Amino acid sequence: MTRPSLTERLARHSAERAQAGLLRRLRTIDHADGAWVHSAGRRLLAFCTNDYLGLAQHPTLVAALKKAADESGVGSGSAHLIGGHRREHAALEEALAEWTGRERALLFSTGYMANLGVMQALLQRDDLCVQDKLNHACLLDGAQLAGATLRRYPHADVDGAARQLASQGDAAALLATDGVFSMDGDIAPLGELAGLCRREGATFMVDDAHGLGVLGPQGEGSVTTAGLGQDDVPVLMATLGKALGCSGAFVAGSAALIEGLVQSARTYIYTTAMPPALAAATLAAVKLTLTEDWRREKLQALIARFRHGASQLGLPLMPSPTAIQPLLLGDAQTALDASKALEQQGFLVTAIRPPTVPQGKSRLRITLSAAHEEADVDRLLEALSRVAAPRPV
Amino acid sequence: MTRPSLTERLARHSAERAQAGLLRRLRTIDHADGAWVHSAGRRLLAFCTNDYLGLAQHPTLVAALKKAADESGVGSGSAHLIGGHRREHAALEEALAEWTGRERALLFSTGYMANLGVMQALLQRDDLCVQDKLNHACLLDGAQLAGATLRRYPHADVDGAARQLASQGDAAALLATDGVFSMDGDIAPLGELAGLCRREGATFMVDDAHGLGVLGPQGEGSVTTAGLGQDDVPVLMATLGKALGCSGAFVAGSAALIEGLVQSARTYIYTTAMPPALAAATLAAVKLTLTEDWRREKLQALIARFRHGASQLGLPLMPSPTAIQPLLLGDAQTALDASKALEQQGFLVTAIRPPTVPQGKSRLRITLSAAHEEADVDRLLEALSRVAAPRPV
Repeated sequence: MTRPSLTERLARHSAERAQAGLLRRLRTIDHADGAWVHSAGRRLLAFCTNDYLGLAQHPTLVAALKKAADESGVGSGSAHLIGGHRREHAALEEALAEWTGRERALLFSTGYMANLGVMQALLQRDDLCVQDKLNHACLLDGAQLAGATLRRYPHADVDGAARQLASQGDAAALLATDGVFSMDGDIAPLGELAGLCRREGATFMVDDAHGLGVLGPQGEGSVTTAGLGQDDVPVLMATLGKALGCSGAFVAGSAALIEGLVQSARTYIYTTAMPPALAAATLAAVKLTLTEDWRREKLQALIARFRHGASQLGLPLMPSPTAIQPLLLGDAQTALDASKALEQQGFLVTAIRPPTVPQGKSRLRITLSAAHEEADVDRLLEALSRVAAPRPV
Repeated sequence: MTRPSLTERLARHSAERAQAGLLRRLRTIDHADGAWVHSAGRRLLAFCTNDYLGLAQHPTLVAALKKAADESGVGSGSAHLIGGHRREHAALEEALAEWTGRERALLFSTGYMANLGVMQALLQRDDLCVQDKLNHACLLDGAQLAGATLRRYPHADVDGAARQLASQGDAAALLATDGVFSMDGDIAPLGELAGLCRREGATFMVDDAHGLGVLGPQGEGSVTTAGLGQDDVPVLMATLGKALGCSGAFVAGSAALIEGLVQSARTYIYTTAMPPALAAATLAAVKLTLTEDWRREKLQALIARFRHGASQLGLPLMPSPTAIQPLLLGDAQTALDASKALEQQGFLVTAIRPPTVPQGKSRLRITLSAAHEEADVDRLLEALSRVAAPRPV
């Protein structure tokens, strides 16, 4: 036979990545303790996780998980619609709907599953899906899986979005954007995009994975903070494994939307429901997030401190008001070298390289957390001044 | 504007399902205790979960979860490649590789994510993906997402598979099948399909979601039981939320394959790693599954007892040797009525209707578990004799 081998082709692709200096390397973390991690015999201060509020190891979450596991065991045993939907799931869904000001919410196992499920349920072949160029991978995959026509607009460019919508003025259309962009940290122009969708008769969808819990007086996220409600953003998705410190995701919206997802979202219907104990831990996280304002306030103060210090050092900051504070370093090797140099000084900061970010836009993706202290940020800045300070061009 | 509304269209679709008697209804389970569930004030004996070995609430799993949560918290905080890969994940991956006789294994958050990730990594546009008509939804979605040419063959028809492969004799090709079919319970003709793939130069992939833990002397699953190794089935996927009683999934194969997935599988790269405590609970489940042969033996005895009794009653059994023992009832309303009648008699058995199964093939999907007792099976058979006994055609 003359068929090319799929596995050999994949192995060649790995080898090419290695040659281009783009190999992704797995590091095993032996233990995590707040912002500190232990790996390969060393203790490193991590500035790379999405545990923005420092909740992932909070004793209240752990206690809720343990109590629910004693009552309900570990696995749910089946899909939501086949006996896997437990009271812990129902209680979490109610809390998430109330928090986000939506009629109903629906749990998914991951953000990836949520976005794929929504798009497959809403979009059909030849529908139009308009997206920001920097949207998360799973939003792009959602449009592809649905078979819709995907049209991307330049980052945060509302006029560009309008042109893409106008390109097919009769097509049923979904406009989807990250609320907070995962690699840049900036917030989408949500109010303007909502206005555009209203005028154009397009459905507006926001993925608030990196905004929920962090933005807004009670952490309601980027959408509520922009003054937008359920009518403005009919499809709101957010994750539970970042600021909330747990795992999974949800979609919130009208009762009709959620019922439609129950009937039609394949990634909801054909998968095992998340462990009920995890839902119980996440409910505890929602309550902490709602009530412990000091976490958001501390995080905001650390963000301001970092930006002020980095600016004084002339570091290549990006225009982000959120916990994601990337330093744009350009080529992949420069970013990787900076990451390695930081590690030698006791910091875990990940280099983000193509294809996760565009060519020439490799960066250190620094993330801040309420688990950090002011002194941690100062020490990081000091280290950055040595490894990422401006150089002659 | 004249754009159709996506949300209204989805709502119409729900209404149409309701009119056709195909509405999916969520039932909240207040508490689960072995095979018993409590819902809406009633206690029901469940014959519908995938907890085939009765491990989901096993105290050893719960203890492992709690111990790991005390040590590691709840959420992993980030993707595997960005500091989220913990020793609990690494230990589970090693155990899964050893158990399945593969060089390496890689964790995914769900089976859906695993299959999508593998197919996106292996397949490119214009590659050929040949699949059994009754494969799980996520395998079909994987081919669609990868942009490959999907060709389906009649259920378990090796000649049909050969014809589909021959239809594009030069294309790089993946042949994917469920090991145990989720709605029929039968086992794919794995040996013959492996031989076909070898002759045709196609890569063979098996989704053993419903076989791992259940089939084989130590629960190694359908592939090992068929005498097939890593060279025969280079891509082996299985889930952790069914027989293993936890959550998530993995892909096992050669070191090169797994490294390729680390580099290229988007659903691995761009998602938060599963909670480490869940990985620890799953490792405990693997150890129990490997050592407690009595669970498989008890399950096999219950399957034999059920099939013997159902056969004597003339119930419409399907040719399944596994824990999935569907009764084929035909139209959707008949299946739904039978499910409701069983519930009145204290049993939770789900009716499976289109589009999950083909038109006219609605069924009760009865699943057996080591958590059941002989008397439970006898009581179910007695109830089935009243609600699903043969009628004049």
